[in-house]
Amino acid sequence: MAKSYSVKFDIAPEPVDVPGGTMLTDAADKAGLEISQPCGGQGRCGQCAVQVTSGKVRRRSTMRLLAEDVEKGYALACQTVIVGDLEVVVPPQEKIQQRLTTGYTATEVAVPDGYDPIKDQTLQRIPITLKPPSMEDQTSDWDRLQTALLQKTGLKKITISLSVLQKLPSVLREGEWKASAVISSPQFPDSGGGAELIDLLPGLMADDTPLWGAAVDIGTTTIKVMIVDLISGEARGQASEYNAQISRGEDVISRIIFAGKGSGDQTLRELALETINELLIRASKRAKTSPEKIYKTVLSGNSTMMHLLLKIPPASIRLAPYITVANHIPALTARDLGIDTYPQGKAIILPGVASYVGSDITAGVLSSGMSETEKTTLFLDVGTNGEMVLGSKEWLVTCACSAGPAFEGAGVIHGMRATTGAIDEVWINEKTYEAAWRVIGGEKPKGLCGSALISLLAELLMTGVINKSGRFDYSLETDRIRKGSHGGEYVICWADESDAGQDIILSEVDIDNLMRAKAAIFAGFSVLADSVGVPLESVEQLLIGGGFGQYINVEKAIQIGLLPDLPWEKFNFLGNTSLKGAYLALLDRKNRDEIIEIANKMTYIELSADNRFFDAFTSAMFLPHTDMSLFPTVKIGGEK
Amino acid sequence: MAKSYSVKFDIAPEPVDVPGGTMLTDAADKAGLEISQPCGGQGRCGQCAVQVTSGKVRRRSTMRLLAEDVEKGYALACQTVIVGDLEVVVPPQEKIQQRLTTGYTATEVAVPDGYDPIKDQTLQRIPITLKPPSMEDQTSDWDRLQTALLQKTGLKKITISLSVLQKLPSVLREGEWKASAVISSPQFPDSGGGAELIDLLPGLMADDTPLWGAAVDIGTTTIKVMIVDLISGEARGQASEYNAQISRGEDVISRIIFAGKGSGDQTLRELALETINELLIRASKRAKTSPEKIYKTVLSGNSTMMHLLLKIPPASIRLAPYITVANHIPALTARDLGIDTYPQGKAIILPGVASYVGSDITAGVLSSGMSETEKTTLFLDVGTNGEMVLGSKEWLVTCACSAGPAFEGAGVIHGMRATTGAIDEVWINEKTYEAAWRVIGGEKPKGLCGSALISLLAELLMTGVINKSGRFDYSLETDRIRKGSHGGEYVICWADESDAGQDIILSEVDIDNLMRAKAAIFAGFSVLADSVGVPLESVEQLLIGGGFGQYINVEKAIQIGLLPDLPWEKFNFLGNTSLKGAYLALLDRKNRDEIIEIANKMTYIELSADNRFFDAFTSAMFLPHTDMSLFPTVKIGGEK
Repeated sequence: MAKSYSVKFDIAPEPVDVPGGTMLTDAADKAGLEISQPCGGQGRCGQCAVQVTSGKVRRRSTMRLLAEDVEKGYALACQTVIVGDLEVVVPPQEKIQQRLTTGYTATEVAVPDGYDPIKDQTLQRIPITLKPPSMEDQTSDWDRLQTALLQKTGLKKITISLSVLQKLPSVLREGEWKASAVISSPQFPDSGGGAELIDLLPGLMADDTPLWGAAVDIGTTTIKVMIVDLISGEARGQASEYNAQISRGEDVISRIIFAGKGSGDQTLRELALETINELLIRASKRAKTSPEKIYKTVLSGNSTMMHLLLKIPPASIRLAPYITVANHIPALTARDLGIDTYPQGKAIILPGVASYVGSDITAGVLSSGMSETEKTTLFLDVGTNGEMVLGSKEWLVTCACSAGPAFEGAGVIHGMRATTGAIDEVWINEKTYEAAWRVIGGEKPKGLCGSALISLLAELLMTGVINKSGRFDYSLETDRIRKGSHGGEYVICWADESDAGQDIILSEVDIDNLMRAKAAIFAGFSVLADSVGVPLESVEQLLIGGGFGQYINVEKAIQIGLLPDLPWEKFNFLGNTSLKGAYLALLDRKNRDEIIEIANKMTYIELSADNRFFDAFTSAMFLPHTDMSLFPTVKIGGEK
Repeated sequence: MAKSYSVKFDIAPEPVDVPGGTMLTDAADKAGLEISQPCGGQGRCGQCAVQVTSGKVRRRSTMRLLAEDVEKGYALACQTVIVGDLEVVVPPQEKIQQRLTTGYTATEVAVPDGYDPIKDQTLQRIPITLKPPSMEDQTSDWDRLQTALLQKTGLKKITISLSVLQKLPSVLREGEWKASAVISSPQFPDSGGGAELIDLLPGLMADDTPLWGAAVDIGTTTIKVMIVDLISGEARGQASEYNAQISRGEDVISRIIFAGKGSGDQTLRELALETINELLIRASKRAKTSPEKIYKTVLSGNSTMMHLLLKIPPASIRLAPYITVANHIPALTARDLGIDTYPQGKAIILPGVASYVGSDITAGVLSSGMSETEKTTLFLDVGTNGEMVLGSKEWLVTCACSAGPAFEGAGVIHGMRATTGAIDEVWINEKTYEAAWRVIGGEKPKGLCGSALISLLAELLMTGVINKSGRFDYSLETDRIRKGSHGGEYVICWADESDAGQDIILSEVDIDNLMRAKAAIFAGFSVLADSVGVPLESVEQLLIGGGFGQYINVEKAIQIGLLPDLPWEKFNFLGNTSLKGAYLALLDRKNRDEIIEIANKMTYIELSADNRFFDAFTSAMFLPHTDMSLFPTVKIGGEK
């Protein structure tokens, strides 16, 4: 029987005795305390954080905790095992909230040079001073305000929403006939139609008082929210979280299937909104504002995510001839969309191109700058699907290949997402075939994330552990190569070194999945290049977007034939290009117009109907490729 | 003790014995039956109707029952007294519903000559046949439909609402790529902006399939709904009911006060919507359609009613300088307005001019034709307020005088609305001073409605019972003139002839109230005429709108100085001009534009700030007037 330890919670009257190995939440339970666990004890929400002020624990996960807080003894009660006598402080909930992180690095954006909120913004705050009504001037409140606004803005007509009409008389009188009018107009600063008074605040405000907007990137896996002050153009708060839809399917196809069953579509819409609304609260707090003060939101994401968010049936995306219901969604109000920002605020969904080329890509192309360069550019966003665009300011062709989620860790036995405990880089000794690795968070490894899989495949190939077909060389003298239940396998990490409870391995089935994924992506490149008659080697720059792209080791990605064999200086990692594009569209109507133009101008190539794709795919089902002349720099050392 | 009678209800197992004079509802209760009484037994809703197949009853009211049904024995259980042995059939609720009337005559409208739904309507149903998508043509559903619609309509751009997007894929596929698109555009038939696809129905329809719209007149007392087929232009169903707000105040001032207390504004909004939505159901049934098929609704009403309907604070209407929050309300969706028609359908609130000249008047002016005539025209709408417009197609001046509700029966001891039991016409014998009367419904009288008050005042004056100051001549030999608790009074109807439980009288206080009301209206005429330098006698036609106007006896109204002394052929009674104007605006965008123009062009004269009004009012505080030269045809016979 396990040894017993005493645990003293600061807010419990008596210490409790529990066996070693007990979870902190169970001990708290025994002490009669209620620890908040909104995520159900999965270690995802971070709400159960407590501070261990004395004694020893083993943390299974520290997700959502800052490293500095972990140093101070903070631990997730639902993920922390008792291995000694403890003293534990249970902090008040507000304090926990302040300390939580998203476990995600904020996307860096720079305010564009020369950004001018008066010239560039479709949202403006106009200060107005009115002459009060009298028996000589019985003009109605709205006519009085409208006349002043038209004079001041030069707009020809301004409409008013019912909710503003309802508060109009009290705001005007509260501000003693001085007010700040929040006007949305696609026409600023020109005169023209479509202008709308969306809010009216009493009194005049300093010119630099923030006016709030939000950019939202809806990924299949992760949703990110950025709060922006539209006056200065600065991003003031960000937050990111797993898309709560994950619980109903990891990839777009399984979600489309789920949406088609019963009220699955409603469930998925609500889950996405739940995540977005929670993130709006979190990011707003960091920006020292609140969601209901956000007047304009710009959203980007893949076409399936947009259909699901809007409860537009996505079935046709999945079935031939693979079409969306709409690529261009009309501007909505926040209320119509279902987000908790200012109800009459604008919610602008950026336009996509096709079923598998959504506004994450059009926004990405904008933020990458490829639509304004003369250089022949290849833009790549690898997530569950591989979406790519080839072109320049003159022309753009695009395609999407269903790479599958292998590089996101799914479909691979020990694959996992890039969170604490994931191996993110692997090295194999070319003589001993022993493995070394690096773990996110520095603890014992639990599995392999995408960048590790690329590294590992390259290392296996370059050291001769596997051949060009991805088959193991059993003749090598190492116990790391063995036959397992899924065919041949390589042991990266022995059970006792791991936190997975078993050996961490890569099997031949895993390798097949990874090869199919990389072959699909490379075949996409080939077809794009072929369709416009531009050889891949003449590509002048290769831009990689998406969260995944940030961690790719280019050398190794080339070695396995995932990326074309171009000089390293031609590669550029851009981070979250989708969120950046949404941010740029939020700031400047010209950027939004350009994204629309990008969407209209892009030629979409449907790979599933293209025989060239199958040929190119088959040729790419080797490491790095059947045609080694395409990979002149790759010298496979271990090859016999 | 009263005699006992046996009552046998068809759906009760046994007859019950009740004393004579028992109400049918009480007998039903005793028999263990539940008779529906949504109005609480006030005889207003008609839901408790039963059929007396044998025996004798006394009906206190037959409101909401058709005369032919009363002949068949139908009776309101809550208003019917047992005076004999009875056999009673309790019909199923559906059957009752079908038989109820509103107790109100439908407003007659004629489809305008040359009405063309293609040229005149802003709402159109466009049949569309699409080429299905294929791997060669992966255009999205919405782009596919939009392209076809733009080609077919010549519009430059069409937006789509989220709810249509959500059903788009299933409708297109259900109709096998044939569909009927319902498009709203202020620009039809010209190309231009603002067009919106508000609904899409599977398959193609016959060109003459109705497309539904509704006209709504929101009166302080009564709300009326008319369902119109926008293809043929015909009114297909009407319904009318007391505005449920009445329970919170009989006139606009008391409602404004109520709206300012706690959540009074929300209560009033809900009560108006409740009435409108009930009427939409009732009128739709008569038109053999349902509210959710109504795509466009046009509403008219006084400014206070519109503020209350929209929950726009009406306080400034009541307090100097007497201004509205808005006279021009932007077009709303049915959902925003809160009516139960098609949620994305248009709800258009016609524009008013001032606090006391609302869209009931601008719509009335349109439907009266005065804005297109060369004749100098005086338009009058008497309700709780007297609103009047003087002008022609060249110019329009308007004013409103707070006549008070005297002519609607309020503020007069035995005043009542023009329903069953109300005396609507009175004659006084010039020799005996005895009274004769006519009763609505032909039963014993309960009180006096507005038209009876005008008649009575004129008869009292012409027979010399009262003098020009409204004082009684006690020297006349009749016991009908006497001193009562409110000063002098005249007995129209003795208690034993009445159903009021007492003598029905008109007191000097009543006469003062009526004189103040008529003086305010006539003073309004005088100021309007004076302000444009047009003498009243040169008015070429006098048009009277509003439900009240329909029952006015012109001769008697002139005798008391309520209406100017013009030849009878110059008078024209137009019925509900507000509802007719809303109907015309519903049909033809040019009519709506003209109402906007009428509202913009009308010059409003604020009487409360006009000294001329007080002078004119004082002069008019005689019967018919201080200046008898203004009433050359009035010869007061009884004058001594």
